[in-house]
Amino acid sequence: MTHPVRIVDTDVHNTFRHVNDLLPYLPEPHRSRVADAGLGYPGSGYYSVVGVLRRDAAPPGGGPAGSDPDLIKRQLLEEYGIDYAVLIGGGILGVSNLVDPDYAAALASAHNDWMIEQWLGNDARFRGAAVVSTLDPELAAREIDRVGPHPGIVEVVMGSGARFPYGQRYYHPIYAAAERHNLPVAIHPGTEGAGVANPPTAAGYPTSYIQWHTCLSQNFAAHTVSLVCDGVFQKFPRLKFVLIEGGVSWLAPLMWRLDKNYRALRSEVPWLTRMPSAYIKEHIRLTTQPIEEPEDPRDLLRIFEIVDAERTLMYASDYPHWDFDHPQTAFPRGLSETLRPRIMAQDALQLYGLPRVAAPAAPDAGTRRRGNAERAPSVSADAPDASPLPLGEG
Amino acid sequence: MTHPVRIVDTDVHNTFRHVNDLLPYLPEPHRSRVADAGLGYPGSGYYSVVGVLRRDAAPPGGGPAGSDPDLIKRQLLEEYGIDYAVLIGGGILGVSNLVDPDYAAALASAHNDWMIEQWLGNDARFRGAAVVSTLDPELAAREIDRVGPHPGIVEVVMGSGARFPYGQRYYHPIYAAAERHNLPVAIHPGTEGAGVANPPTAAGYPTSYIQWHTCLSQNFAAHTVSLVCDGVFQKFPRLKFVLIEGGVSWLAPLMWRLDKNYRALRSEVPWLTRMPSAYIKEHIRLTTQPIEEPEDPRDLLRIFEIVDAERTLMYASDYPHWDFDHPQTAFPRGLSETLRPRIMAQDALQLYGLPRVAAPAAPDAGTRRRGNAERAPSVSADAPDASPLPLGEG
Repeated sequence: MTHPVRIVDTDVHNTFRHVNDLLPYLPEPHRSRVADAGLGYPGSGYYSVVGVLRRDAAPPGGGPAGSDPDLIKRQLLEEYGIDYAVLIGGGILGVSNLVDPDYAAALASAHNDWMIEQWLGNDARFRGAAVVSTLDPELAAREIDRVGPHPGIVEVVMGSGARFPYGQRYYHPIYAAAERHNLPVAIHPGTEGAGVANPPTAAGYPTSYIQWHTCLSQNFAAHTVSLVCDGVFQKFPRLKFVLIEGGVSWLAPLMWRLDKNYRALRSEVPWLTRMPSAYIKEHIRLTTQPIEEPEDPRDLLRIFEIVDAERTLMYASDYPHWDFDHPQTAFPRGLSETLRPRIMAQDALQLYGLPRVAAPAAPDAGTRRRGNAERAPSVSADAPDASPLPLGEG
Repeated sequence: MTHPVRIVDTDVHNTFRHVNDLLPYLPEPHRSRVADAGLGYPGSGYYSVVGVLRRDAAPPGGGPAGSDPDLIKRQLLEEYGIDYAVLIGGGILGVSNLVDPDYAAALASAHNDWMIEQWLGNDARFRGAAVVSTLDPELAAREIDRVGPHPGIVEVVMGSGARFPYGQRYYHPIYAAAERHNLPVAIHPGTEGAGVANPPTAAGYPTSYIQWHTCLSQNFAAHTVSLVCDGVFQKFPRLKFVLIEGGVSWLAPLMWRLDKNYRALRSEVPWLTRMPSAYIKEHIRLTTQPIEEPEDPRDLLRIFEIVDAERTLMYASDYPHWDFDHPQTAFPRGLSETLRPRIMAQDALQLYGLPRVAAPAAPDAGTRRRGNAERAPSVSADAPDASPLPLGEG
C-alpha cells in the first residue's frame, strides 16, 4: 500500500533514552568521559516556564520525549499522515558549543552512528540529519564524507548558535563536503549563547526565555546575510542551506534591507552577480514551525509570496517540542491549494531527493535515490503532484 | 513670518570641526588626555566603500560634514523646508564603548555643553539630543538632571551598541531621570561591535560593512524586546523610547513573534498587563531613515499600518550621512495624506513638545514649552494640522 507523499515533516526531534546509549559508539578517551560526566554541554541559562517538551510525548516506558521510535510513529506519523520525518536529533546540537574539537567530533560521529543504526534502520519513513561540530570544519567534512553516502542521511545539521557568521571562510570545508554529497546544510536553534557561542542577541544576553526565543531569528538573519555576502553560494553553486525553526517573516524585511544596501555597496561584494534576494530564494530553505501568527492572516500569506514560499518553505512540526505546529491548523485559511502541497511535501521531496510515493512502514534504507530531484529527477520537480489531498480547509 | 510646522527632521548629525573644540568644556585630567590623544574611541573595523558622509556636505571652509551650522541651514533646513532639526551629534556616541566611566561621562557633558552653546544658541530651529554614556547609569542620570532643564534639549541619546539589552535594571536610573524631565530616550546605531559593546550581530562579527549595516536592526530588535519584557514601560509609564536609524519593517514580524510567545510564556513576565505589541505602539517611536524599499511599495504601506505609523513613525533625513532620505521622495506614492503629515511633523511635534508653528530663523532658546504635548498641549495632538502642505505627490 503506497500513495503519493502528502506530508514531509522536516523537523522532528529524536533522542537517546540515556546518554549511555551513545557509549558503544564512542572511542576512548571520550567513552570514559561521557560515562563519568555525561555530555558536559555548557548551557545558556534560559528556562522555559512551559518546558520544552510536550508532556504527552514522554514514552510510557520511561525515557525522554522523542526517545521511543514506536511512539513517534504512532503519535506523529500515523496521527497526522506524515510520510517522511527528517530526524534532527535532540540534546546533541551543542557539540559546537564545547571547547574540545576532538571530543565534539567524536560525539557527533557517535550520535550519527547511533541514529543510523537505531532509527534509520527502524523505519523507512525516518530520514536523518547528520550532526557535525563546527569546532573543526575539516573534521566536520570528514564526518560528512563518512556518513554522507548512507542513503538514509539527507542533511547535515549544525546549531545556529555560532562564534561568527556561517558564511565565513573558516566553515567552507563543511560546505564543500556537503555539496560533494549533495546534502543540504541545516541549522537549528537552541545553542545560542551557550559555551563558546556568541551571546544570543546582537545586544548580548537577555533576561528570560521569552526574550531569548523571540530573538532567535537574529542568528538566522546574520547567517543568511553572511552566506550570501561572503559568497558561499557563488563558491558552492549547488549548495542549499536550510533554516530550521528560525521563523519565516523576518526574511522579507531582511531581503529589502539587504537588496537596498547592495545597490549602494555592491563593490564590497564584487563576486555577487545577482541581487542578494535572488541568492536567498535559490539557496535558502526555511521550515515553517514556529510560524508567525499576525492578527490579519493575509499578512502571513503576503510574506509567503515575498519569500517565494512556493520553493523555499517546508512544513515542520517540531515534534515533540512544546510549540508543536499541527499540519492541518498551522497555516491560515487563505493558503492556496497550489502552495499548500509545495509547503507540506513537494519542496522537501525535491530538496532531500525523497521518493514521491510514501515508504512502506518497514526498513528500506537502501532504496532512497541519492541526489536532489533537480539533478536526477524521477518525477519532474515542477510537475503537479499526482494527487495532493486537501489538508484542512485551505 | 511663521507658518504651521511642516517637517521635523529627527536625525541630523552636527559635529565639531575638530575635537579640540571640546577642550574648553572638559575638566582635567580629561582635557589633557583629549589634547594629547584625541577621543580615543575604539572602532569596530568596518569600512564603507561609499564613505559615511555626503561629500557635498563638507564645509567649503574646512572641517567635516555637519560641522558648519550655516551650511546645515542652507543645505538642509532651507533646501527642504525643514522647520526643526533634532541634532543627534556626530562622532560622539562612542562614549558608551569606552572602558572608563568617568572619562565617558566627562566627554558626554563636554559635548552637551558645546552643543548647547554653539548650536542651540545659534538658531531656534535646532533642538538637541543630550548624549549620555551607559557606562555608569547614575552619572548618566546626573547629566540628564543637569542639562535636561535646558529648553533646547528635547531628547537623551545613547549608542545602540550595548553590552546587554537596554531593558535591564542596570539602565533604569537613566530612564527615571529621562521620565523626570519628560525627555524621550533615543538610541542610534554606529557603535555596534566597538570596544566594550557586544559583537554587532547575534552570530558575532560579520566581514563587511554591507553585512554590518544590514544587521544593525538586530540591536534595535533586542533592545525593544528587552524594554518591553523587562518591564521598563510598566515602571516608567510616561517614558518614550526612540529607535533612530534602525529601520522600520523588522518591527512587524518581531511584534508577531513576541505576541505569539507572550500567549504561551506570559507567566515569565507577570508585570505585563497588555500584549507586548501594545507597549511597543504606545512607547516606541521610530525614525524613518533608512526606509526599506520593497519591490512592491504597497508592502511598505502595509508595514506602516501594522506598526501604527500614525503615532509611531517620524521622518528623518540622517543628514549629512551618505544614505540621506529626501523628504519628498523617501516614501512610496500611495502614502495617505492623513499619514504623511503625521510622519513628517506631527508625531515629532507631539513627542518633543515642539511649537506647532515654525520658529523664526533666530535664537529663541528660551521659548520652548517644556513637556510632551500629551501633558501640556497648546494645540491638541489629535487635531488636524492647520495647513499641512502636500509634500510631493503622495
